[in-house]
Amino acid sequence: MNHHSAHYSFRVHFDETDPGGVLFFGRLFFHAHRAYEAFMRRQGVGLARVMEEWKLALPIRKAEAEFFKPLRLDQEVAVIVTLARLGHSAFELDYIFGDPDDPAARAHTVHVAMGNDGRPVALPEQLRHALASHEKSP
Amino acid sequence: MNHHSAHYSFRVHFDETDPGGVLFFGRLFFHAHRAYEAFMRRQGVGLARVMEEWKLALPIRKAEAEFFKPLRLDQEVAVIVTLARLGHSAFELDYIFGDPDDPAARAHTVHVAMGNDGRPVALPEQLRHALASHEKSP
Amino acid sequence: MNHHSAHYSFRVHFDETDPGGVLFFGRLFFHAHRAYEAFMRRQGVGLARVMEEWKLALPIRKAEAEFFKPLRLDQEVAVIVTLARLGHSAFELDYIFGDPDDPAARAHTVHVAMGNDGRPVALPEQLRHALASHEKSP
Amino acid sequence: MNHHSAHYSFRVHFDETDPGGVLFFGRLFFHAHRAYEAFMRRQGVGLARVMEEWKLALPIRKAEAEFFKPLRLDQEVAVIVTLARLGHSAFELDYIFGDPDDPAARAHTVHVAMGNDGRPVALPEQLRHALASHEKSP
Repeated sequence: MNHHSAHYSFRVHFDETDPGGVLFFGRLFFHAHRAYEAFMRRQGVGLARVMEEWKLALPIRKAEAEFFKPLRLDQEVAVIVTLARLGHSAFELDYIFGDPDDPAARAHTVHVAMGNDGRPVALPEQLRHALASHEKSP
Repeated sequence: MNHHSAHYSFRVHFDETDPGGVLFFGRLFFHAHRAYEAFMRRQGVGLARVMEEWKLALPIRKAEAEFFKPLRLDQEVAVIVTLARLGHSAFELDYIFGDPDDPAARAHTVHVAMGNDGRPVALPEQLRHALASHEKSP
Repeated sequence: MNHHSAHYSFRVHFDETDPGGVLFFGRLFFHAHRAYEAFMRRQGVGLARVMEEWKLALPIRKAEAEFFKPLRLDQEVAVIVTLARLGHSAFELDYIFGDPDDPAARAHTVHVAMGNDGRPVALPEQLRHALASHEKSP
Repeated sequence: MNHHSAHYSFRVHFDETDPGGVLFFGRLFFHAHRAYEAFMRRQGVGLARVMEEWKLALPIRKAEAEFFKPLRLDQEVAVIVTLARLGHSAFELDYIFGDPDDPAARAHTVHVAMGNDGRPVALPEQLRHALASHEKSP
């Protein structure tokens, strides 16, 4: 059984609501990525470091989201990130937006490790370790 | 056999490229929505009219995308939209980004018709007709 | 002498950095608006309430910003908002980004109160009071 | 007397309208930058080239805008860019949005040439020439 604290939370701002007064659907993917950045920082592997130190990019190959409830202006939304799969040169993340027992939205992303030449590379051991250990350090 | 002209095209602008110099993945969903808006306009049912005249919202329930190639700064990208499914109160759209024979990305969205009270409603006949007839009027 | 606590702070996220790895200049205006929203919430007059209860819009007539230092990926930036002018149907706000003694950026916005018919109206007394009293309740 | 054709035009999309159904003010600065990119491309000095070939950044030091009329969903807006000032290591641009005789908005930006070490440098002669000659090649 896992008890997770939220990795990231955001308030729905005026600039990201649409004429219906709710979060524009595409913004959810921005917040998923920000939750992923916060998740990585908590593991000690911030994206700035990934890019500069390891000369590595972690582009997203696939992304999907389901929207269950509108997210309204001024609403605060917590996001929980969990590792869904850890492969040789790829990993997958799950995101829950709002109350985990009754989420407002869910998302899923697939990331691939790529060197500067644009070819897939093995995930650095330190990164693998950080991703795998997150369950124990919420 | 269908020959489609693009419904929408965009140039990758500075503001939507990330530190890697390529389109931030989340922006693809914005461009998918803009292609959907253009697709609707071509059918004569622009979103402004949907909201004002029919008092209808068409929120996205599900969205997904696959990314095959990076989209670089200044690059021009054409988007083709096709109707994937037409239901009673829902419809689904497919999006191809770039060369249809070797696409840079693909996306898929599921839309549900909702009245002002937030409950699903049947798609207006005129909207159904417009969506269904698009194959013949590229 | 005024000692202000920050009204809003943000981290520079991947999605808002440009190919140079720094905050895209236009995003500063988004963060200024978010700081303004937080400033209003602290005065008890959140924007959702302004729009719904008072049937009022507060569109921006003028906006300007100066950029002194780049804001880099992962950097945290605090924003302080102060009332610069309070008129009959308009008010102006100043924004300081980062260390007030050595700011990374400054911004200024001019807001006008408008009714649903698009014509200027007097600022509601409660809103005037909230704006004017902010100095005492940092 | 100058007769300018528009350098860039955009349609106001759903994702950039606010709960009032009009363009979020901060987005105007994005469109100003896109018009500036188009202006540069027309002079033969696209931003990708500026960054890669000349190892030069042209960060914005100051930006301002005035908003005269709301820009509504689906509306098409043309933008005209003119050189306002050309200095040793800086230049300034003016932007008109919509009908030049009755504009919906105006903007102004100040750009400074910076080398990779973050210090101001002289504008390359080719860039100066391109900026200065634009009057003759609308």
